[in-house]
Amino acid sequence: MLALKKKLESEAKCLPNGIIGMSSFLNHQVDAPLLKEVGEEFARRFQAKLPTKILTAETSGLLPALSMAMVLGLPMIYARKQRPVTMVQEPYTAEAESHTKGGRIRLYVTPEFLLSTDRVVIIDDVLASAVTTLALVSIVKQSGAALVGIGAVIEKCYENGRQKLEPLNVPIESLAKVISVDNARLVLAD
Amino acid sequence: MLALKKKLESEAKCLPNGIIGMSSFLNHQVDAPLLKEVGEEFARRFQAKLPTKILTAETSGLLPALSMAMVLGLPMIYARKQRPVTMVQEPYTAEAESHTKGGRIRLYVTPEFLLSTDRVVIIDDVLASAVTTLALVSIVKQSGAALVGIGAVIEKCYENGRQKLEPLNVPIESLAKVISVDNARLVLAD
Repeated sequence: MLALKKKLESEAKCLPNGIIGMSSFLNHQVDAPLLKEVGEEFARRFQAKLPTKILTAETSGLLPALSMAMVLGLPMIYARKQRPVTMVQEPYTAEAESHTKGGRIRLYVTPEFLLSTDRVVIIDDVLASAVTTLALVSIVKQSGAALVGIGAVIEKCYENGRQKLEPLNVPIESLAKVISVDNARLVLAD
Repeated sequence: MLALKKKLESEAKCLPNGIIGMSSFLNHQVDAPLLKEVGEEFARRFQAKLPTKILTAETSGLLPALSMAMVLGLPMIYARKQRPVTMVQEPYTAEAESHTKGGRIRLYVTPEFLLSTDRVVIIDDVLASAVTTLALVSIVKQSGAALVGIGAVIEKCYENGRQKLEPLNVPIESLAKVISVDNARLVLAD
């Protein structure tokens, strides 16, 4: 995705510990026209897998997931990080961790929204160490639904998340690949 | 908005303490086509105010705010509930509280994204006691930007948030008004 690559080259900030600052367009201020393109691109890449639901996790995953779900006219589900009082039914749950915020978190999804007949694409903003993605994969497995694809807006190739997901044998699509953040410089794949 | 009213009548759950369960279409599973309509309706109602930015707060406010921002081609900003390590600059900040989760929270917005020349519409999923909205209003005031409107998908009229916002003298638009949840039954305004 050329527009995304240009955005990364012009606005992303290289911070310590391999963290990429994308708060001007992705996870604080949001470039809505860019997010619209992101949703269209995910829809194009995954529609042949005939998904019935898009699954993501709070918080910044909501944006690309909603955008894709709007294009395909599908329900989107976002796993909650806290179990709200409105979640009455015993939820599917799995543990994950936040790289930028530190510490472990737990994700919750209500069983009535994820059926064994569903075909699920997992979407997130960033694929890094894949811990959040694997927690979502665990929730999909608990539901008996079929996982049919995994998508991320940005892939941090240097954190090797893709290798952990390859055994799942589903398409893994990222719209921009960051190879390294050496010397405070972002190196993108072609 | 007829589609939203029908959704509330068919799927919303009346829970204790005036809480409305909307997890099947708004804040856990998300009805993406409905959210698309919500964004179009907000755009229609506020475009004459010539907004330059849409502001919301984590988490469920992101969905209607992004949808509206996509229609108008504007940047959307979501206030963070935790200050991430990527937020280097001293942020604008204000305190709010979560009705469904309990406890007080603090919202953060990076100054570089909210300029004194901006015209801001605040969007949220629910207008209840208006505590979150007032925190966002405080952040807009700190920035020197002009507040030009406030929108909510659902207004809980029985929590009187609108009265607290009226002194701001900006249009307040909600797409569905819940008058009461008496006897576990949702009563909507016409």
